[in-house]
Amino acid sequence: MSVRFYNCRILTMSDDTIIEGELWTDNDRISYIGPAKSVSDKRFDREIDCKGNLLMPGLKNAHTHSAMTFSRSLADEYCLNDWLHKAIFPREANLTPEHVYWFAKLAYADYLAGGITACFDMYFHKYENAKAAVETGFRHVFCGAANDYGGFDMLEQNYIDLNDYDPLVSFKLGFHAEYTTCEDNLKVMSDLAHKYSAPVYTHISETSEEVDGCKERYGVTPAVLFDKLGIFDFGGGGFHCVWFTDEDRDIFKNRDLWSVFNACSNLKLASGITPVYKFIEKNMNIAIGTDGAGSNNALSMFREMYLDTVLSNVETHNTAAVDPFTILKAGTSGGALCMGLNDCDVLSEGKKADIIMIDMNKPSMQPENNIVRNIVYSADNDCVKMTMIDGKILYEDGVYTTLDICEIIRECNKFKKDLV
Amino acid sequence: MSVRFYNCRILTMSDDTIIEGELWTDNDRISYIGPAKSVSDKRFDREIDCKGNLLMPGLKNAHTHSAMTFSRSLADEYCLNDWLHKAIFPREANLTPEHVYWFAKLAYADYLAGGITACFDMYFHKYENAKAAVETGFRHVFCGAANDYGGFDMLEQNYIDLNDYDPLVSFKLGFHAEYTTCEDNLKVMSDLAHKYSAPVYTHISETSEEVDGCKERYGVTPAVLFDKLGIFDFGGGGFHCVWFTDEDRDIFKNRDLWSVFNACSNLKLASGITPVYKFIEKNMNIAIGTDGAGSNNALSMFREMYLDTVLSNVETHNTAAVDPFTILKAGTSGGALCMGLNDCDVLSEGKKADIIMIDMNKPSMQPENNIVRNIVYSADNDCVKMTMIDGKILYEDGVYTTLDICEIIRECNKFKKDLV
Repeated sequence: MSVRFYNCRILTMSDDTIIEGELWTDNDRISYIGPAKSVSDKRFDREIDCKGNLLMPGLKNAHTHSAMTFSRSLADEYCLNDWLHKAIFPREANLTPEHVYWFAKLAYADYLAGGITACFDMYFHKYENAKAAVETGFRHVFCGAANDYGGFDMLEQNYIDLNDYDPLVSFKLGFHAEYTTCEDNLKVMSDLAHKYSAPVYTHISETSEEVDGCKERYGVTPAVLFDKLGIFDFGGGGFHCVWFTDEDRDIFKNRDLWSVFNACSNLKLASGITPVYKFIEKNMNIAIGTDGAGSNNALSMFREMYLDTVLSNVETHNTAAVDPFTILKAGTSGGALCMGLNDCDVLSEGKKADIIMIDMNKPSMQPENNIVRNIVYSADNDCVKMTMIDGKILYEDGVYTTLDICEIIRECNKFKKDLV
Repeated sequence: MSVRFYNCRILTMSDDTIIEGELWTDNDRISYIGPAKSVSDKRFDREIDCKGNLLMPGLKNAHTHSAMTFSRSLADEYCLNDWLHKAIFPREANLTPEHVYWFAKLAYADYLAGGITACFDMYFHKYENAKAAVETGFRHVFCGAANDYGGFDMLEQNYIDLNDYDPLVSFKLGFHAEYTTCEDNLKVMSDLAHKYSAPVYTHISETSEEVDGCKERYGVTPAVLFDKLGIFDFGGGGFHCVWFTDEDRDIFKNRDLWSVFNACSNLKLASGITPVYKFIEKNMNIAIGTDGAGSNNALSMFREMYLDTVLSNVETHNTAAVDPFTILKAGTSGGALCMGLNDCDVLSEGKKADIIMIDMNKPSMQPENNIVRNIVYSADNDCVKMTMIDGKILYEDGVYTTLDICEIIRECNKFKKDLV
């Protein structure tokens, strides 16, 4: 498959300039970005007149639990601890691989509609989920979710299998969190990181109660604990990072670890507001995720990016506390690098063709005082005209090319009764 | 124009139940809501198979400055005071009626795409704006914006003219704010309210600096001052209400005044977070607005409703601090009653046909664990399939019936250079 996009504007995300011209794809890669060019000697499978619409790298959802779409609007009245133990864990005990297959597909439909071209997903029934990803054509990076209730027995096998499953699928070592993982298991985690010289990812400092509990058990914060145990010796990162201390930030900065923000989920579960500006002041590696649909409840990177930009303003009493382009970088190239997708970070020749088209005829994208700011401050899923992953157009003008949305909705509502 | 919507689900907003059946319109009114019904003896101009999609009352944007779309992404680095004096007021000095006409149309396009069927708008060049509203078919309620720099001389004439202009247009007495209006002018405002037995609306307690300044000048908060001056003797309300004291809330409660929330603008301008739960605990009259595009920067009632629901969670450490249905009421019927649109609050026979259709095939509306919560917690403009005002479909499947979006965008970007 080769596509020629012409009459387009292109935000490569290498910097914040917007160039006018063409972008060509050849199979899974970008083959040309530059001024309009004669194509008499070249054939494309498809030529798309973009009519001035904007191409940019797909958004990267750097922390999610895709198949948790089952729990959207199901138990909105609980804080994190009760939400997990009273609402989520009992239902997850009944989740079958088939459930995960369909609810992951529902999440992919949501991602594609919202311009998301890759997700960093922590959940279970991973093989059935991988099947759903490949059928959809979605770029899915699994994160280990091991904890004391299970997963450590399978972690190494998952790592081997799912890194050799399909070019669209990969697997990163990870565990659920300190408060669900005893010290012995944390040491297993560290040993595995060392065995494979691999980065490790986990939920970290999501609530103040989590940090207090860790301090009671170990006398230190989770970041300090994991660092001491050698878990981060080969990189990785943490999800949420709401209650990081300056020392935690220093550890993450010094080790080039990724801090992944989840603003909506943290608000909804009453966990707290991440001081995003403190991470940016230290020039840390940052990325953005939606968390699962049970605690967000959308899967919109636009809403996340907006909140990551404005939520620091009140605390700092500074409307320039967080620069919107820095947040757009976190939501695109940052997320890609966080999850090891080094060829999906920006648009340039030779990089993967994971591209979205923003509809500049949407009123929320106008006037064009500053297109980058329009994206961060006022765009939503309605502005996504097309989503391409690995050189294939999977969503265009509201239509999915690989997903049957009616079938997915029917199956998800059928299964829903097993889980309520 | 008469329309039969069949195979639909209907959330009337009289309560939170969803009924299945049909909704008929006859000119500007709803003529039937109920079970599927034989129509052999009745002719409609159009019959729409809703295929299970949801009809509900249009969202009401209860505080906005529509034509401020000119300032979207223009000066995002200022707090309220500097933003007004350095970025906005100098540019507004150059705003012509023609600018307002086109930038208001851009806002209408945004409103219609986001399921908004009426706005409560505080701005100037009102006659040219009224023309834009009527051409669009948009229901526009003007709010007086008088202050010491101008507007008091025209307030009564605007009130008379614009309440007799067109059924889609009305006008409410209002002034900009305490900090821009001297005591003599506040007394003029009060006299006019008494002359017409009319409600009065204003910006109120948006920033802590505003409240401090009012206390320095008068020894009391703005709400107490306005109450003492008799400004609220015939009702009305306030926009923002971020820094209300308990006494302010009591005044608003006892006088049945409307508190209108603007969460996004208050975050972006670093003004603060409104403790929405305190207004709900007192069972006060509440409504929701986007404020202008310069300080939001979207014009999305979905994003507002989401934030009004979740932003109280962190302060209260209670994920049930604010009930989503209460917020959806504020965003629909609350807004309508706030701005005097007593026939646009809920869907029932005889009420105005100001109706939107939510696309239930959007992944963010699935699964159907709780449709009301899906709307508040995860919907965005992408879920709006149709927007009808006064019985006329103005937006359907992304297409405008009365607006030429390309022309609007062209004109707005042409004018943009006059204002930067």
